[in-house]
Amino acid sequence: MTDQIAFLGTGLMGSRMATRLLSAGYRLRVWNRSIEKAAPLAAKGASVAATPVEACRDVALTVMMLADAPAVRSVLFEQGAAGSLARGGLVIDMSSNAPPDAREHARRLAARGVAHLDAPVSGGPGGAEEGTLAIMVGGRDADFERAAPILRHLGRPTLVGPAGTGQLAKLCNQTIVALTIGAVAEALLLAKAGGADPAKVREAVAGGYADSPIMRVHGKRMVDRAFAPGGPSRLQLKDLRNILDSADAAGLRLPLASRVTELYESLVANGDGDLDHSALFLELERMNR
Amino acid sequence: MTDQIAFLGTGLMGSRMATRLLSAGYRLRVWNRSIEKAAPLAAKGASVAATPVEACRDVALTVMMLADAPAVRSVLFEQGAAGSLARGGLVIDMSSNAPPDAREHARRLAARGVAHLDAPVSGGPGGAEEGTLAIMVGGRDADFERAAPILRHLGRPTLVGPAGTGQLAKLCNQTIVALTIGAVAEALLLAKAGGADPAKVREAVAGGYADSPIMRVHGKRMVDRAFAPGGPSRLQLKDLRNILDSADAAGLRLPLASRVTELYESLVANGDGDLDHSALFLELERMNR
Repeated sequence: MTDQIAFLGTGLMGSRMATRLLSAGYRLRVWNRSIEKAAPLAAKGASVAATPVEACRDVALTVMMLADAPAVRSVLFEQGAAGSLARGGLVIDMSSNAPPDAREHARRLAARGVAHLDAPVSGGPGGAEEGTLAIMVGGRDADFERAAPILRHLGRPTLVGPAGTGQLAKLCNQTIVALTIGAVAEALLLAKAGGADPAKVREAVAGGYADSPIMRVHGKRMVDRAFAPGGPSRLQLKDLRNILDSADAAGLRLPLASRVTELYESLVANGDGDLDHSALFLELERMNR
Repeated sequence: MTDQIAFLGTGLMGSRMATRLLSAGYRLRVWNRSIEKAAPLAAKGASVAATPVEACRDVALTVMMLADAPAVRSVLFEQGAAGSLARGGLVIDMSSNAPPDAREHARRLAARGVAHLDAPVSGGPGGAEEGTLAIMVGGRDADFERAAPILRHLGRPTLVGPAGTGQLAKLCNQTIVALTIGAVAEALLLAKAGGADPAKVREAVAGGYADSPIMRVHGKRMVDRAFAPGGPSRLQLKDLRNILDSADAAGLRLPLASRVTELYESLVANGDGDLDHSALFLELERMNR
């Protein structure tokens, strides 16, 4: 078994995370679907693998940062990375998926004697670069202890429960993000409609109970009407559908999450799915025209 | 004309604010409906007036921190404080009212040659004591310039527009507060229903985009099931009704604010109006039983 770590997926987030691990002294084998995105990491000391199988051969530890569940399944089970992992190895999947996907991946890996943690993140490319990501982890205690020293180079890992609950926590995070965007949008529309200056209202409430990173970042986007993404609305809608699916599976009604999902459905149906998720403001403007 | 400032309403918030002004060297005449709440300020150098009329006689500047619009109207126009104010004087009303109330008070005072600012606050007794309140001001530029040096001893004043828009900004603040409470409540319910530890999920998302003072303070109340107020739900409902009234008056539909208002209506109808507004969590639990 090699002491190298396999790192699969070196896009916007993954390249920054891999760079932090290299700086911390870890030896990395990196792979990316389009190899040119992995190449800059070679200059920083990584070895670049041509396939996931090659990257994972005999490694004890694999970190994944891929686009979605189909990409994870393709890499692990269709392209066959799972088969080349060492028995007793650990896969840390930091991609954002639905909780049932994470549970399925954990089950299929366990059948081959490989452990799995779901460990999605919040904090964006800035947080990835600074190593300040919120890392929400689902899985077993012993596996978390094994992963934590590595994850601490990337941010603040918290074990929230068994397999799949890391992804569930990410969905909880996204529930709050979507609804806070909606709250800020309605507040700024009310300010304008009532004759106040929305930019001044945003400044005035700063530091109080209505303050939040969403108010600071996405509230500013609304005031400036600057809706280039950022996080596109169609991905926010994907998250919201996963949120309502998870709630349904648990027999849970979430009236506010349901309402904001309808609003994002309209926003995307009206052709604004590629705009930043703060563009919910535009949908609320539209329905008030 | 005297250089003393009249300070009307020395309850939980007002007593702390008056203390800060005394410490800054201002000479204060204080009045409170129950005089025993004004008495401790005498020891700090204030003169205590027996009536609003006596407090306001010939002063150029009056600060009010009263319970609601009926209390403000009673003090100014029924008990007659407005009649004893010096012409050219300024009333800074820091109480939380509806925007039409503030506009009416400004109009009636203007008829007597007295200026008016609506300047409600966010930040609670802690912010009042530390002098870090968010102060949302509606009124005229010149009056704001006159008030600002005093208000800066109490927090961060921002002029957001003409008369009434300070109160409107406070309603915008409360829109965000109510919806963020709802968002955090739904997220924590989802976490629990899906098998994650809600306390751990709350910790895990800290520092990311889902973080906020509401998550830190009210999310903790939900996890601990600690719903003694704080800010009672019936007052949150009063604010939400004012929000929807202001939206209606402007021809504006606010779908998320409407939905969260219905939830607070149920919470209060179910007898929990005196619990902290974070008890919206209980209403969402109830509808999922």
